[in-house]
Amino acid sequence: MRYELYYWSGIQGRGEFVRLALEDAGADYIDVVRKCGDKAMMPFLRGAQDGALPFAPPFLKAGRLVIAQTATILAYLGPRLGLVPGGQAAELYAQQLQQTIADFVVEVHDTHHPIASSQYYEQQRSAARKRAQAFRDERLPKFLGYFEKVIERGNGKQALSRHSYVDLSLFQLVSGLDYAFPNAMRDMENRIPRLRALAERVSQRANIAAYLRSSRRLAFNEEGIFRHYPALDSKG
Amino acid sequence: MRYELYYWSGIQGRGEFVRLALEDAGADYIDVVRKCGDKAMMPFLRGAQDGALPFAPPFLKAGRLVIAQTATILAYLGPRLGLVPGGQAAELYAQQLQQTIADFVVEVHDTHHPIASSQYYEQQRSAARKRAQAFRDERLPKFLGYFEKVIERGNGKQALSRHSYVDLSLFQLVSGLDYAFPNAMRDMENRIPRLRALAERVSQRANIAAYLRSSRRLAFNEEGIFRHYPALDSKG
Repeated sequence: MRYELYYWSGIQGRGEFVRLALEDAGADYIDVVRKCGDKAMMPFLRGAQDGALPFAPPFLKAGRLVIAQTATILAYLGPRLGLVPGGQAAELYAQQLQQTIADFVVEVHDTHHPIASSQYYEQQRSAARKRAQAFRDERLPKFLGYFEKVIERGNGKQALSRHSYVDLSLFQLVSGLDYAFPNAMRDMENRIPRLRALAERVSQRANIAAYLRSSRRLAFNEEGIFRHYPALDSKG
Repeated sequence: MRYELYYWSGIQGRGEFVRLALEDAGADYIDVVRKCGDKAMMPFLRGAQDGALPFAPPFLKAGRLVIAQTATILAYLGPRLGLVPGGQAAELYAQQLQQTIADFVVEVHDTHHPIASSQYYEQQRSAARKRAQAFRDERLPKFLGYFEKVIERGNGKQALSRHSYVDLSLFQLVSGLDYAFPNAMRDMENRIPRLRALAERVSQRANIAAYLRSSRRLAFNEEGIFRHYPALDSKG
């Protein structure tokens, strides 16, 4: 099966969570927009194509199926790419964790866009500073502390004890947070040893390491979800 | 199977999307917190129970499974309660739509809490007014227009042509928006005829109608996701 991934070019964004799964598994896929331009997505978003109507990219075409929403795409790909342990409990746990990651990603985005996605960051700086502070003080420790605990329990007999697409997404989350909030992440350092070890392990997987060195991996930048605005990070 | 639903008492919140599915299907379930108090959730949230660790309520206990995140709970319940058409395409489409509803619900919540969930609305009124305006002008028409189009296409040969848990959630969404933003919803009226008809149809389903009349259905209030603050609605 040759998968077709559709996502905005120029940013890692939500597409990156899917891309990491395809790359880790060595799947056969085309990154359609990078090859053919943004307009390739339009017939799908307009509803001119058969199959599911995506609300927004990323979406995946797999044969005749059109699948949107990162967590749904990964729920679909997981068993097919060997990226989730077998069994219903593990699959459901992975889906739930991926949706929690998706929720967290919205909160990361909203640190720089607390008022309106349609306006520039510069138009909502003051609200952004307040939201970013609440994010650093409350949400960042809450979410990362949660994932740390999930990994801790996973070392025992819990469902997610083996490599999965969730690990890849947690790597991406930690990488993006390191880029966007280097000081706040340094403050978190000794509270997330297992999450750090997991991210390190993921970065050294052969296919991921090769991908990260390749030109297919875009750099983080100030157009994406994880943006480095020093005013939104803690003091160094 | 007797399902156990865990969610905060006193509000409809995200638990209501699950409750509507259980009620519509006439499933055997216990609303644990309403029966036993909030503390019944704590062993799960602390990680003292086997199975998946929920980030937050709602979560469902189904035999030995613990399932959190509304969209994952519904992806699990859908086929078991006859609340999703058969086949992979329909199941994936329903999951995707439910996650899009979840994303929208976050945006509804953030109209009254754009800065921090931990602070009162009264502490973030000014940002809330700005965020609510962007919500009414851009996000509300975008999301509702999207669901309208999904229903329009569903009348043809698309995956979601039969009753599903997504319909129940769309009913809940429309009901909540009518409560929170009556003026803005009146302005949207002639742009969402199919969504209105769907919500009406759902409200007349025998089990749903009985549920809505029962004391199990809490009223919307200013502790939940859908809050009526006139300052955040359009002018009448």
